[in-house]
Amino acid sequence: MALNVTQKLIKDHLVSGKMEPGEEIGLQIDQTLTQDATGTMVMLELEAMGLDYAKTEASAQYVDHNLIQEDNKNPDDHLFLESSAQRFGLHFSRPGNGVSHPVHMQRLAIPGKTLLGSDSHTCANGCMGMLAMGAGGIDVAMAITGEPIYIKMPDVMGVKLTGKLPDWVSAKDVILEMLRRHDVKGGVGKIIEYYGPGLDDLSVMDRHVIANMGAELGATATVFPSDNEVKHFLSMQDRADDWIELTADGDADYDIHEEINLSQLEPLVAKPSSPGNVVPVREIAGTPIYQSYIGSSANPGFRDFAIAAEIVKNRNITNGVSFDINPTSRQMLTNLVKEMHIASLLQSGARLHQAGCNGCIGMGQAPATGRNSLRTTPRNFPGRSGTKEDSVFLSSPETAAVSALTGTITDPRTMDFAYPKVNDPAEPSVDDRLLEKPLPKEEAQKVELVKGPNIASIPSMDELPDELDIPVLLKVRDNISTDEILAGGARVLPYRSNLPEISKFTYENVDPSYVDRAMVTKEKSGHAIVGGFNYGQGSSREHAALAPRYLGLRVVIVKDFARIHWQNLVNFGVLPLKFANEDDYEKLESETVLHFENLRSQVKNNDRIKLTVVDSGDEITAEHNLSERQREVVLRGGLINWIKERQQNTTS
Amino acid sequence: MALNVTQKLIKDHLVSGKMEPGEEIGLQIDQTLTQDATGTMVMLELEAMGLDYAKTEASAQYVDHNLIQEDNKNPDDHLFLESSAQRFGLHFSRPGNGVSHPVHMQRLAIPGKTLLGSDSHTCANGCMGMLAMGAGGIDVAMAITGEPIYIKMPDVMGVKLTGKLPDWVSAKDVILEMLRRHDVKGGVGKIIEYYGPGLDDLSVMDRHVIANMGAELGATATVFPSDNEVKHFLSMQDRADDWIELTADGDADYDIHEEINLSQLEPLVAKPSSPGNVVPVREIAGTPIYQSYIGSSANPGFRDFAIAAEIVKNRNITNGVSFDINPTSRQMLTNLVKEMHIASLLQSGARLHQAGCNGCIGMGQAPATGRNSLRTTPRNFPGRSGTKEDSVFLSSPETAAVSALTGTITDPRTMDFAYPKVNDPAEPSVDDRLLEKPLPKEEAQKVELVKGPNIASIPSMDELPDELDIPVLLKVRDNISTDEILAGGARVLPYRSNLPEISKFTYENVDPSYVDRAMVTKEKSGHAIVGGFNYGQGSSREHAALAPRYLGLRVVIVKDFARIHWQNLVNFGVLPLKFANEDDYEKLESETVLHFENLRSQVKNNDRIKLTVVDSGDEITAEHNLSERQREVVLRGGLINWIKERQQNTTS
Repeated sequence: MALNVTQKLIKDHLVSGKMEPGEEIGLQIDQTLTQDATGTMVMLELEAMGLDYAKTEASAQYVDHNLIQEDNKNPDDHLFLESSAQRFGLHFSRPGNGVSHPVHMQRLAIPGKTLLGSDSHTCANGCMGMLAMGAGGIDVAMAITGEPIYIKMPDVMGVKLTGKLPDWVSAKDVILEMLRRHDVKGGVGKIIEYYGPGLDDLSVMDRHVIANMGAELGATATVFPSDNEVKHFLSMQDRADDWIELTADGDADYDIHEEINLSQLEPLVAKPSSPGNVVPVREIAGTPIYQSYIGSSANPGFRDFAIAAEIVKNRNITNGVSFDINPTSRQMLTNLVKEMHIASLLQSGARLHQAGCNGCIGMGQAPATGRNSLRTTPRNFPGRSGTKEDSVFLSSPETAAVSALTGTITDPRTMDFAYPKVNDPAEPSVDDRLLEKPLPKEEAQKVELVKGPNIASIPSMDELPDELDIPVLLKVRDNISTDEILAGGARVLPYRSNLPEISKFTYENVDPSYVDRAMVTKEKSGHAIVGGFNYGQGSSREHAALAPRYLGLRVVIVKDFARIHWQNLVNFGVLPLKFANEDDYEKLESETVLHFENLRSQVKNNDRIKLTVVDSGDEITAEHNLSERQREVVLRGGLINWIKERQQNTTS
Repeated sequence: MALNVTQKLIKDHLVSGKMEPGEEIGLQIDQTLTQDATGTMVMLELEAMGLDYAKTEASAQYVDHNLIQEDNKNPDDHLFLESSAQRFGLHFSRPGNGVSHPVHMQRLAIPGKTLLGSDSHTCANGCMGMLAMGAGGIDVAMAITGEPIYIKMPDVMGVKLTGKLPDWVSAKDVILEMLRRHDVKGGVGKIIEYYGPGLDDLSVMDRHVIANMGAELGATATVFPSDNEVKHFLSMQDRADDWIELTADGDADYDIHEEINLSQLEPLVAKPSSPGNVVPVREIAGTPIYQSYIGSSANPGFRDFAIAAEIVKNRNITNGVSFDINPTSRQMLTNLVKEMHIASLLQSGARLHQAGCNGCIGMGQAPATGRNSLRTTPRNFPGRSGTKEDSVFLSSPETAAVSALTGTITDPRTMDFAYPKVNDPAEPSVDDRLLEKPLPKEEAQKVELVKGPNIASIPSMDELPDELDIPVLLKVRDNISTDEILAGGARVLPYRSNLPEISKFTYENVDPSYVDRAMVTKEKSGHAIVGGFNYGQGSSREHAALAPRYLGLRVVIVKDFARIHWQNLVNFGVLPLKFANEDDYEKLESETVLHFENLRSQVKNNDRIKLTVVDSGDEITAEHNLSERQREVVLRGGLINWIKERQQNTTS
């Protein structure tokens, strides 16, 4: 059977399931990446799992999110991550080395491999002929321990590229065109594979731009072939040996078909406050801007900065515009310095920031209240810039640079000078001075984790008991969000690596007495929470399951769950139950004591779960819908215990 | 009479008093600088004073402290400062243009002039043959309105420099030697003037290093002559016409004499946690470091970065050391880029940060807990780095750069390579793209101040009434600090430009009910506070007087005052009284009502102040010790009203 690139990648890594859209498949993971914001918890999970040494071919821990270091917390995290990388056999990319996605692509990505990362833009490395996917932290921790990842086999959408990009139009406009057509949910349940003659003029860095913002389409992954462009890219990185060819078979087909004629594209812009809110630049030309921002993993290439530099060279940015340059990696910055592009940018009036994620994730460069910011970043969701009521537009570097000159959003085709040509440096600077290699296993085993005062190990958690008498501590309404369970933001996030501390914020806005009451049950047999419909909607943050579990939560009984939070409860060993009869919700109140008997065998045998309301003697029936693997995980008290046992079995 | 440079500068600007050490003198101010952290309040004061247009020869508003922009507050402040600069006829240095002191020196400083700045390192511009002094915000606001500054005539300490700096020893070691000899109080009440043949080998930027850290000696100012080095410096800035010669008369003398033979200096380092804790580097060689940090106004020159670049060129920094490069200005950074020094730094493994104050004032680059940081910055007071229990060492760029290579504090003379020679660029990049010129007066008058949601005008405050019946709202113990009156820190500081909001934190740790009770008196005739000895000790922050005044504070009666807070109370129209008989402290309790009669005439006539305790009928006598000018200010309700009236008189 003729296969496309996606199917070849999946087939090569399939450990369970059938390659039919909608079927659950297990995939072996060759490489992982973690960044610092999610990575500290991943490393604590690896510690709790008792991992000896990474079982992947290459795993890398990057520091690119929390670079600001206003106090000890971020630098302490950096040291913890470095020691963890050394302990567990990971590469470590030091603060200042750059954003994970372009650095991984340059130094570690290998065509034909799978990559799982605890960052939603991990998909960017699909530009290298890889199957690259974002996932939750504990999924990546599992992959590092050698476990496969389980996903639903997606549909493959083949996007045929024809023609050639006109002057002033670049890769960003291709992905903005996809977003214009399909909006932010158009890629859900799909892998998007690009092919066709239009690829010939797209460098691997151009393809990175397109693959990166596949995340904004909601796609599981974006895949490009590994062709001569990839070969050239790797040889420029002194890694020619890492290349293999990987292209679709001549008669391969796709589940869904799409086509873009590059010749017909024009400069596009996503208006506030969604990446899917795309219109031609000319339609909003003249809108005044306060900021023009070049950088982020959505436009990370040498070319993206060089074209901006050539556009502003020997010109002045408009007075009043903040022209912010956020280099994506130290290596890229070095090349831009050597080729005099940084000098051109600075002389035009630019502000040069450190290499990293920076303003793209709200870490600096926030715009002023009520002012328009034009950015080459991937996302413009409300408040992501750091400013609560922001107004962020997304565009190509070409559009952002000319708009810095004019002070208004400007179609670059209307400028009175020719489209500058830029070339990648013939001999780019390549070094790994801030990318530490994994220690050999013997040395790694001697490394002690470095834990600053704000970093705490995850305490061990016990198995699901067979008999339980626990009070309902909280009865909540429909649509409780993970933000209500555990808020994000500047007050809470600094404790992301400190479970005992972060737990103190649990449910604080719903019932400030919950934490104290839960702490009492933690020392006994725990407690339950009762909820309505759509329990745990919103952000996927794992702490919203882990923190109440730490406080003694054993069972959640609701009318139904939001999917990701349900999965997170299972992962951390909380039994998630649905009322068989929704009216039973009325029978349970705060402080009602519940009695469970033969709970382990009921779960093991995939029975409906029976429980008794101790005071009234009422019997209540609940369902769980757990897969066999999930039942095992819950019985063990969560994924950490489950993996820990498997680690011990495989090591001994 | 033969005069030294200091005496010439003072004589040229003297508007009142005698040039005898200890006498109060009034000095005309030619130039001012404000930075953003202090400048927002200065601009609000200018607004409240009703200033039409700056009366100084040149005043500049810089944005160099709060560059991080994690939310709307900093960028909103930047827009407010820009609009204020336009409104009041100031230069405006945009975010990204660099640290005030080197930028002012390059673009605006003029030999023979006086400069007053709301930043303690304003003294750095003494390198240009100027009398440059730091001051409180409202003093600078007054200078901008054309008022003189009043200081005690200092002693002049003449420091004769002989010899020539050896290899690996540079200007930073000269000022560290001064700190080794005189410690952090050795300059109090003095102006330090450098002279002698040793000056010939010190460029103006080297002199900046020495003048800058005169602040750490506690000196009122540091003065250098304006000689051919200054002439050369100005001509490199295309400002040759701004040069005048200004040197000491041949037979001029000094009040105090000191001498340094440069040939005998060696590399020095200030150990934690005081700039005065100075020892030779060799004495602590081998101490491991976590961070090496190049930058700040204490080592701002092209040379300071270039020498570090030449030292690390084609070498690698040690694994685990964070080598942080903090350029001081965009112009300097452009030159360092063009001369390939930035490429050398990056290739060695450096992290490059935006141009500004950054880590020097705890805005980023904080070290990890318990790790040693070696910095070229001017201060290592505990916690200033942002990390509470930090361990910061201060040194020259030479020592910091070689230590980045070795990973330990290293005497650079022990390296196995020759001392690199660096030259300033023959044709440095000079432009004012981010330094906006003042608007002409007619245009300025049309500018509206841009106030984000967190910026509030200072409400108008009334005159001191002649009769007052006010309750004592708070009776406090000895040694109340301004931190207890109004805390600093991340919770409170964001409201520095919003008096109604910041006032809500007043006295919160002493009596959380104070603010609510005070708000009630604010609508009536106000209230009093009673205190013990040393009231208002600690930080000089003006908000500690302004916030309670806003809440209705009219009179403070204590056993005695800390000097600066006493002055601040006067400036904001609070009558500061001392018990004539300290035992009367016992007669006053919280909620005691006080009655004042003929208060204005008692103040005006410089009488002791009589008040009656309403309930008991007790009579209490208090003293004020106010000068004639201060009595006028208090009667008017504070400096803002006092200036406002003078503005109106001079305009009409």
